[in-house]
Amino acid sequence: LWEILTLAFARAVFVEFLSTLIFVFIGLGSALKWPSALPSILQISLAFGLAIGTLVQAFGHISGAHINPAVTIAFFVGNQISFLRTLFYVIAQLVGAIAGAGILYGVTPANTRGNLAINALNNNTTPGQALVVEIILTFQLAACIFASTDNRRSGSVGAPALSIGLSVAVGHLVGIYFTGCSMNPARSFGPAVVVRRFSSAHWVFWVGPILGACFASLLYFYILVPYCMNLSDRVAIIKGTYESEEEWEEQREERKKSMELTPP
Amino acid sequence: LWEILTLAFARAVFVEFLSTLIFVFIGLGSALKWPSALPSILQISLAFGLAIGTLVQAFGHISGAHINPAVTIAFFVGNQISFLRTLFYVIAQLVGAIAGAGILYGVTPANTRGNLAINALNNNTTPGQALVVEIILTFQLAACIFASTDNRRSGSVGAPALSIGLSVAVGHLVGIYFTGCSMNPARSFGPAVVVRRFSSAHWVFWVGPILGACFASLLYFYILVPYCMNLSDRVAIIKGTYESEEEWEEQREERKKSMELTPP
Amino acid sequence: LWEILTLAFARAVFVEFLSTLIFVFIGLGSALKWPSALPSILQISLAFGLAIGTLVQAFGHISGAHINPAVTIAFFVGNQISFLRTLFYVIAQLVGAIAGAGILYGVTPANTRGNLAINALNNNTTPGQALVVEIILTFQLAACIFASTDNRRSGSVGAPALSIGLSVAVGHLVGIYFTGCSMNPARSFGPAVVVRRFSSAHWVFWVGPILGACFASLLYFYILVPYCMNLSDRVAIIKGTYESEEEWEEQREERKKSMELTPP
Amino acid sequence: LWEILTLAFARAVFVEFLSTLIFVFIGLGSALKWPSALPSILQISLAFGLAIGTLVQAFGHISGAHINPAVTIAFFVGNQISFLRTLFYVIAQLVGAIAGAGILYGVTPANTRGNLAINALNNNTTPGQALVVEIILTFQLAACIFASTDNRRSGSVGAPALSIGLSVAVGHLVGIYFTGCSMNPARSFGPAVVVRRFSSAHWVFWVGPILGACFASLLYFYILVPYCMNLSDRVAIIKGTYESEEEWEEQREERKKSMELTPP
Repeated sequence: LWEILTLAFARAVFVEFLSTLIFVFIGLGSALKWPSALPSILQISLAFGLAIGTLVQAFGHISGAHINPAVTIAFFVGNQISFLRTLFYVIAQLVGAIAGAGILYGVTPANTRGNLAINALNNNTTPGQALVVEIILTFQLAACIFASTDNRRSGSVGAPALSIGLSVAVGHLVGIYFTGCSMNPARSFGPAVVVRRFSSAHWVFWVGPILGACFASLLYFYILVPYCMNLSDRVAIIKGTYESEEEWEEQREERKKSMELTPP
Repeated sequence: LWEILTLAFARAVFVEFLSTLIFVFIGLGSALKWPSALPSILQISLAFGLAIGTLVQAFGHISGAHINPAVTIAFFVGNQISFLRTLFYVIAQLVGAIAGAGILYGVTPANTRGNLAINALNNNTTPGQALVVEIILTFQLAACIFASTDNRRSGSVGAPALSIGLSVAVGHLVGIYFTGCSMNPARSFGPAVVVRRFSSAHWVFWVGPILGACFASLLYFYILVPYCMNLSDRVAIIKGTYESEEEWEEQREERKKSMELTPP
Repeated sequence: LWEILTLAFARAVFVEFLSTLIFVFIGLGSALKWPSALPSILQISLAFGLAIGTLVQAFGHISGAHINPAVTIAFFVGNQISFLRTLFYVIAQLVGAIAGAGILYGVTPANTRGNLAINALNNNTTPGQALVVEIILTFQLAACIFASTDNRRSGSVGAPALSIGLSVAVGHLVGIYFTGCSMNPARSFGPAVVVRRFSSAHWVFWVGPILGACFASLLYFYILVPYCMNLSDRVAIIKGTYESEEEWEEQREERKKSMELTPP
Repeated sequence: LWEILTLAFARAVFVEFLSTLIFVFIGLGSALKWPSALPSILQISLAFGLAIGTLVQAFGHISGAHINPAVTIAFFVGNQISFLRTLFYVIAQLVGAIAGAGILYGVTPANTRGNLAINALNNNTTPGQALVVEIILTFQLAACIFASTDNRRSGSVGAPALSIGLSVAVGHLVGIYFTGCSMNPARSFGPAVVVRRFSSAHWVFWVGPILGACFASLLYFYILVPYCMNLSDRVAIIKGTYESEEEWEEQREERKKSMELTPP
């Protein structure tokens, strides 16, 4: 279990914490019920989306910039990252989301805080309907992420950070009407912790995004563009052991051509 | 007729089904008459556009991500794909559009469904006027697609997925006023089937987009940047036979440099 | 004077006509006073900007996709294109703008046509103030175009088509308040011809954009990133003679690495 | 101290002046209280963001296009540029901001000038709250800039200019509610000088952005992706002496592969 002892691992986990903090701060901050001018749905959608776009651009080469437990779990299900990386990332994301929501709570005038833009069922949506919506919206986001960061693509993939960000934005353009749009358990969990308000449909914002992202992962990594790998390599990836870490580094080498940078 | 027996062909057809499903779900979902906050034209335009942008980014390397019968037919007219690929893509797109509209119908509160944002003549537009608008708007979209995915361009083509998506968006910024904006027969057909409402101008949303995309195809592939190919090769492309498939694969090889990824 | 006899030259001129037609059609069409929902300034700005972004992506490798007499004249002043190319492009752009405005006039319901969104002085702006605004806004657009298409830049220049399009959009976000925002004499000329309404400030929409673009050209091509060329080469570029054409082709060769495509 | 005597240095300083002038002109111009149609928060955010995106695209290869004293100071703190370059850039940016605000004042009808969109505490925000918001928002912007322009990244970094611009936009989507959104001391200083109105919280718009950008710089250049350099090289960078200039040129060579252009 060497992987988690490396400096690169510690940096990556810290970056997941920090970027989720900033994402939740900006996203929720854009969606508060400001009395001077109520934000429009397009405005909120672009705030969430461009925040992800910026953070992926800034930190994608350090940690992958998942910023989303559903995405991290889906990468694990797709046999792309180790179990411990998954665990540490998810914890870092959840702590980051709480911190981001907490800071926002602290800096926002009391009359504007409201419920900190927590996710909830809107417009008479039922939990089952909300679940389907969250699954479909997170599916398209996760598929966009997997394709945009696939190290086997040999050339340019356009502007991956912007594409991923705008995928988040377009999800919100529909999802806000149904649920306020989660697509990300950390985004739902953070403000719920800070304002201590867990609706009875809170599970939807965990199950929906995780299912949607995992469906995308199974489709992308096992059916559409499968890897040819033997079982021991696959197990080693899960363990994050030396062999799988070599695999990881090897992937990094290839990714460098299009997306990465060498830490000295 | 080997082409259609390959796994890659089956994947591509499935991806056209799935991406049209998601596109129609998001596009129509963003355009419903939500009582809490009626969506603005800019918001709807960006939802349609960014949905295409995301799906092209996610699935362009699998199937080309046409997501549009007019585009598929225009690629056929431009001698880029086989007849059977055209046929299967169009069917997959139409079925996907119905499925996407149907799922949206199911998850949407009854008082919000309305007519599921079907296309129709608005603001006193006549069928003839609508036809001209659909032709011009689809023309610019198709030209953008052909240029963005031309495998003969040797270097970067910027951010093809975003450019194509924003081309869809800009079409909507004008077209919504006239017709709700189709540019895509599947987008018009899906909700019309689900709500069982075919207006007398429904033909406009087939003829306009297909004519516009085919004009762009004829201009781009035969006049502006013509291919030098003998007749038997051209026929083989249409047939999707081994020779033409080799051609297809050869094109893929070149495309990989800028856009594609090798399935193992 | 060989250049203008080539097929590539004819294609380029035709493409300037066609893309200006589409640009004017979309831009003006988005800005009409639609009774159902008056378009917002942001919506109009993005329509103009994304139209340019799409057309540059679609046709930049054929003609350069100037779509703007001010830009074409500035390229000439920067010693980048021949006199005859400049002349033919400008004529094609003006004819295209009239055609685009005319088609829009034809397809638009009579009660919506209004003045076809011609440029005029708004909000008590004086001609002198409008001139300064048009100069500054066109300056930033032209500088963005020159940097995005500079064939001496050896690597990626991001997403040139989108950057140029968004430069047009940001100009409109300010300029609409002052003048409706021209930055492009063809965009001002086309609808003025169609509705036969030339305001006394119409000259501003020629002088402002041309001055702004030429200032950018002088700064970029002679001061910031000057070319080392002898006088006879410079004269040959202006003449479009064989030598200068060779120069042109040579530039094309280099551009191919990043942006162009070889017509067979 | 050779560096400042080069033509490239003079060009870079002039470009910082000019681009800050244009940025402030467009940003403030989009945010004036136009009586005909009050600009929305999304519209203002995109104007600031797309202005930066355009200017980075146009001038990034000349000066780096910081357009922001906080960013320039953070690059200095990150040991990326010399002390004199920092000093000259900051002065050029401040003068440019005053010039841009002044020109805008001159061309704007008197009843629209208002307070030229100066930054101030809105919605009952306290100085301490505003400080935290400015730190976080500038942090994400600076991190995006450092990652997007890191010359050690060997491949494509997507569309750096657009990513940086949209990072500015997303900051405004939140920050406008609190402070009008600075993230840039020059943007706050320019209009304050022109309308001679320095609020008691004006220091927030210096301290917040500079702290936020410097935190990002320390994190990025010393912890996440540190340089391996000996002390004398580091001192030489600060001094801008021949050795450090060689370093600078060497960096430029590498950057050329992805972003730069050779002045002849």
